[in-house]
Amino acid sequence: MAELLPKIKSPEDLNDFTTAQLEQLASEIREVLCNLVATRTAHFASNLGVVELCIALHRTFDFKQDRLIWDTGHQIYPHKLITGRYDQFNTMRTKGGLMGYPNPNESEYDLFMTGHAGASVSTVMGLSSGDYLSGENDRHSVAVIGDGAFPSGMVFEALNNAKAQKGNLIIILNDNKMSICPRVGGVADYFDRLRMNPFYTGFKTEVVKALNMVPLFGDPTERFLAQLKEGVKAGLHGGMLFEELGVNYIGPIDGHNIPLLRKYLEMVKTQKGPTLLHVVTEKGHGYDPAAEDPVYYHTPPAMCKTDEDEENAPKPGESKAYTNYARDAIADVMRKNEKVTVLTAAMCQGTKMEPLRDEFGDRFFDTGICESHTVAFAAGQAKAGLRPIVNIYSTFLQRSFDNVFQEVALQDLPVVFTMDRAGITAADGPTHHGMYDIGYMRMFPNMVVMAPGDADELTEMINFAVEHDHPTAIRYPKTNAENIARDRQPVELGKAEVLKRGSDGAVICYGPQLAEAKKAVELLAKDGIDVTLVNARFVKPLDTETMLSIVSEAPFVVTVEEGALMTGFGSALLEAANEAGMNASHVKRLGIPDVFVQHGDRAEILAELQLDALGIASVCRQLAAAHDQISSSH
Amino acid sequence: MAELLPKIKSPEDLNDFTTAQLEQLASEIREVLCNLVATRTAHFASNLGVVELCIALHRTFDFKQDRLIWDTGHQIYPHKLITGRYDQFNTMRTKGGLMGYPNPNESEYDLFMTGHAGASVSTVMGLSSGDYLSGENDRHSVAVIGDGAFPSGMVFEALNNAKAQKGNLIIILNDNKMSICPRVGGVADYFDRLRMNPFYTGFKTEVVKALNMVPLFGDPTERFLAQLKEGVKAGLHGGMLFEELGVNYIGPIDGHNIPLLRKYLEMVKTQKGPTLLHVVTEKGHGYDPAAEDPVYYHTPPAMCKTDEDEENAPKPGESKAYTNYARDAIADVMRKNEKVTVLTAAMCQGTKMEPLRDEFGDRFFDTGICESHTVAFAAGQAKAGLRPIVNIYSTFLQRSFDNVFQEVALQDLPVVFTMDRAGITAADGPTHHGMYDIGYMRMFPNMVVMAPGDADELTEMINFAVEHDHPTAIRYPKTNAENIARDRQPVELGKAEVLKRGSDGAVICYGPQLAEAKKAVELLAKDGIDVTLVNARFVKPLDTETMLSIVSEAPFVVTVEEGALMTGFGSALLEAANEAGMNASHVKRLGIPDVFVQHGDRAEILAELQLDALGIASVCRQLAAAHDQISSSH
Repeated sequence: MAELLPKIKSPEDLNDFTTAQLEQLASEIREVLCNLVATRTAHFASNLGVVELCIALHRTFDFKQDRLIWDTGHQIYPHKLITGRYDQFNTMRTKGGLMGYPNPNESEYDLFMTGHAGASVSTVMGLSSGDYLSGENDRHSVAVIGDGAFPSGMVFEALNNAKAQKGNLIIILNDNKMSICPRVGGVADYFDRLRMNPFYTGFKTEVVKALNMVPLFGDPTERFLAQLKEGVKAGLHGGMLFEELGVNYIGPIDGHNIPLLRKYLEMVKTQKGPTLLHVVTEKGHGYDPAAEDPVYYHTPPAMCKTDEDEENAPKPGESKAYTNYARDAIADVMRKNEKVTVLTAAMCQGTKMEPLRDEFGDRFFDTGICESHTVAFAAGQAKAGLRPIVNIYSTFLQRSFDNVFQEVALQDLPVVFTMDRAGITAADGPTHHGMYDIGYMRMFPNMVVMAPGDADELTEMINFAVEHDHPTAIRYPKTNAENIARDRQPVELGKAEVLKRGSDGAVICYGPQLAEAKKAVELLAKDGIDVTLVNARFVKPLDTETMLSIVSEAPFVVTVEEGALMTGFGSALLEAANEAGMNASHVKRLGIPDVFVQHGDRAEILAELQLDALGIASVCRQLAAAHDQISSSH
Repeated sequence: MAELLPKIKSPEDLNDFTTAQLEQLASEIREVLCNLVATRTAHFASNLGVVELCIALHRTFDFKQDRLIWDTGHQIYPHKLITGRYDQFNTMRTKGGLMGYPNPNESEYDLFMTGHAGASVSTVMGLSSGDYLSGENDRHSVAVIGDGAFPSGMVFEALNNAKAQKGNLIIILNDNKMSICPRVGGVADYFDRLRMNPFYTGFKTEVVKALNMVPLFGDPTERFLAQLKEGVKAGLHGGMLFEELGVNYIGPIDGHNIPLLRKYLEMVKTQKGPTLLHVVTEKGHGYDPAAEDPVYYHTPPAMCKTDEDEENAPKPGESKAYTNYARDAIADVMRKNEKVTVLTAAMCQGTKMEPLRDEFGDRFFDTGICESHTVAFAAGQAKAGLRPIVNIYSTFLQRSFDNVFQEVALQDLPVVFTMDRAGITAADGPTHHGMYDIGYMRMFPNMVVMAPGDADELTEMINFAVEHDHPTAIRYPKTNAENIARDRQPVELGKAEVLKRGSDGAVICYGPQLAEAKKAVELLAKDGIDVTLVNARFVKPLDTETMLSIVSEAPFVVTVEEGALMTGFGSALLEAANEAGMNASHVKRLGIPDVFVQHGDRAEILAELQLDALGIASVCRQLAAAHDQISSSH
């Protein structure tokens, strides 16, 4: 039973705690974390890893004044427990409850919603700059950034600008040797070497002092000796990569030792100029299964009902997720066509790609959290004759927007984008919903932009995409996939599929709401309302022939999309109708309005947005009634 | 007179040249470059700097097979001269002529259009990966990247992935100590130190050999000695930042010495694993004024008519560019409000911000080509109470798309985006036109998105924006600004301005085409067509009251915008009309269709798009005639 934790109303309460009490607090936090994940899917291993660091930070700094950013924010749970949210903790990731990321609306201790990696160093630099220019020089700014997030290009951009920075700037590298998946890349190897290099301050200081006393002679001996001195210092130091950029490097130190953490945090607090403290933690620390398999325990399914984990192991006859269909379809095209490669940006677990890594070896690329690089790299592969599939979540592909433009669309290269998590991703909230891809993809010339109506169509679209000689993008949501029994028409460029013809109105669906739309149409039929049902498939090129004949004939048209209405599918339909000089005032667009959708249950959110069968049917009924009224009044 | 150059039909012709001839060729190329910039605005200093490097590259590699990317592509001119485009060279940057960047449509030697910085390392890695997987292991892939482009985050992402790369990968760091503006940041300082560190291969090799013979003892002496050895090697080596990431570093070497360049290029050609060759060049080399002032000579105005350089020094009574108005307005708000800061990403020259750097010192931030960082940094400043103005070209702000989303819009922070070069930027071509910002800004909640109708309105909008407590974005084109004489209505959130009421139709203009629209309306008046003229000002929030009353009343409506029609202003108007259940079939949207617009003369391109007075008037006349016909047939 937690004893200390319930009493903590603010981090200031830690000030009176002894080290033993702080350590007890760490145990209590771990217990609460374990209890939480027993009941629901939540970020786990990363939170277990930062318990001591979080306590030491709050014990050393006063984050009412000082600034703290967690990057990414999924390691925020201990912070939430310490900053007065213990009582609400069991609402975590549920509708109206605590967000699984920092949330300024919850607490003054949460500064930015940080669901996308790598921005923390820039934002704390901005905070620090703001405090400096406002004369608030006693405020400290701290970014805690994981080694998985660290290779994001913008971290490097920030480090490049750190030296010119006036004001206090502390970067804590939380090195747990993991991204969500095992870490990849040169930076990871570098961190591994740093960890091999124990940190003996006293010893180092003395050697450096001695070296400084070595006199220097004329050229070229002088130059050699100068290099020797600097070289020895560098070898002693270990953090050359940072030091070269003008950032002080300290570490690595044990991230589970509270007194040690406090000692070094106090030290960096007084340091002038930008300082990086390298803290080594163990993802899953304190819970053996999680420490042994941090990939699985990154966001484990509710542990008390592991046999219900439908995403990872669907039972025969049960549906599986779109993610799995995409993975299987990609594997199939890779088996058939050796020109096909697949790229993920550290999301091999989320996208269920691990089996492909094993099967395809050098045609599988995990670039780490480096989405810009990933897309440009894929463009290079395409230029050299390959057929790369870039498998990135809709929301994270936003990080490659300019590369989708310059490296892919402008060069008209056959790169395939499989945009997973397009639409409402539920419990993660607004940083993770994939809202904007319909607009941000269709605005570029050359791009083919599509969404499957059901599971088998996703497979077909992936097959279509790797054969198409231009850029293509396919969006699909984070949900279980259904198949709609019908005489399926093959996927053809820019062709929609009409599932049913009716005379009272029409529903045009872009994407897997098709199953709901079909149910809606069936409900309406029971009410005697006979409605056309169209599976749009392509937003670009839009099937204007089909769309416009429906717009011109149907008494009402409802468009259905799981994305932002502004610039979205319905908007594309309006553009096409307008281009043809058609009246589209009887078109009703269902989708996501101009707000950031909060976290919650996916089905519930979709129901609120009228994007489920009942919602679609209800809108159609209103439109049918309104039309009848107009007709009868004429 | 060029003697060798006219004979070169392909780089293979260099194979028979002696060193003396190659050097003569360099002189001839410089002469041609000087002649070119005597007659027109063109990239100059950077091209003078790479003449020898370009010759040495083509003499060493066979880029019919091997791969070469110039980053950014404005240093492509010598390459174009050597690859068979001497005869067309005087068409440079004119409509239908050579593009000022690499262009795959011109030559098989141009692989990617590289107008945005930093993608080259990723794309050559992709090319190399493609060749490797296709079994074409004898092909070499070379990226030439300037030190100005190098701090782009995605270069770091690429380096992080380089070590895992199979296949040949050569990165040439073209270090001319400059971005377009003087270079900033930790990477720049690091390059400076590298240049101080002469490269003596023989000497180094021997020292390293000797060190390898030093025996190692038990801990901790062993550890110290190991560190000492590595440290000395590092000190000798110089390229630690790259070596730490697993990239071989060689250099720095003199980039104007052809035999030396050839020697080292031959060396790196045989090197295994990713290799970076550090080449030091002088921007403007061989033309003294350009070497002395490479900022001015980056893209100098046509030198034979310097007194016509209207952008830099407008004469009294002459119009000045929107860029200058923005700069002056920003300076004014900075004088009035000390919370206002301004940020540029290496474009202080293009945005005419140099005087602000001098005047405002620590409230002026040049981040280098680090747009993602810039936006997140600004968000941090805003969170700390400042009012940052992010002054980035529309096309380059695409690089911050995800930060505009997560760090600014989602947090609802008062960051002001002044998006220069929005619309057709003329001679630079498709990588530089600012086509997409209307769509990519308006799709985010909380964002206010606007465009001034004339020069003074830009000033007013900047004043408005820094007082508005939410994110704002203002777009304006690269052209001279006009003022429209009228009883000006003050800028008010979400309010359009009606300049004139007419009963025959309406023109709604978003942005500075307003002057042309006004001329069009005047032309139409002469024909007896009386047209309403609206200055939209805001695309978000849209002035639905004004817009919808016009849509409902006007016989026809023409919308005018200098941006992509898909997802643009007209599209927003259609969405609003649709939301209100209105027929918008009589709305005609003028803007940029779904193609990449090539380079050319701005006025000419706009005329082709019917975005000038004649075009707008002509479209209105047709619509008026069509409406009359319908009316009379009823």
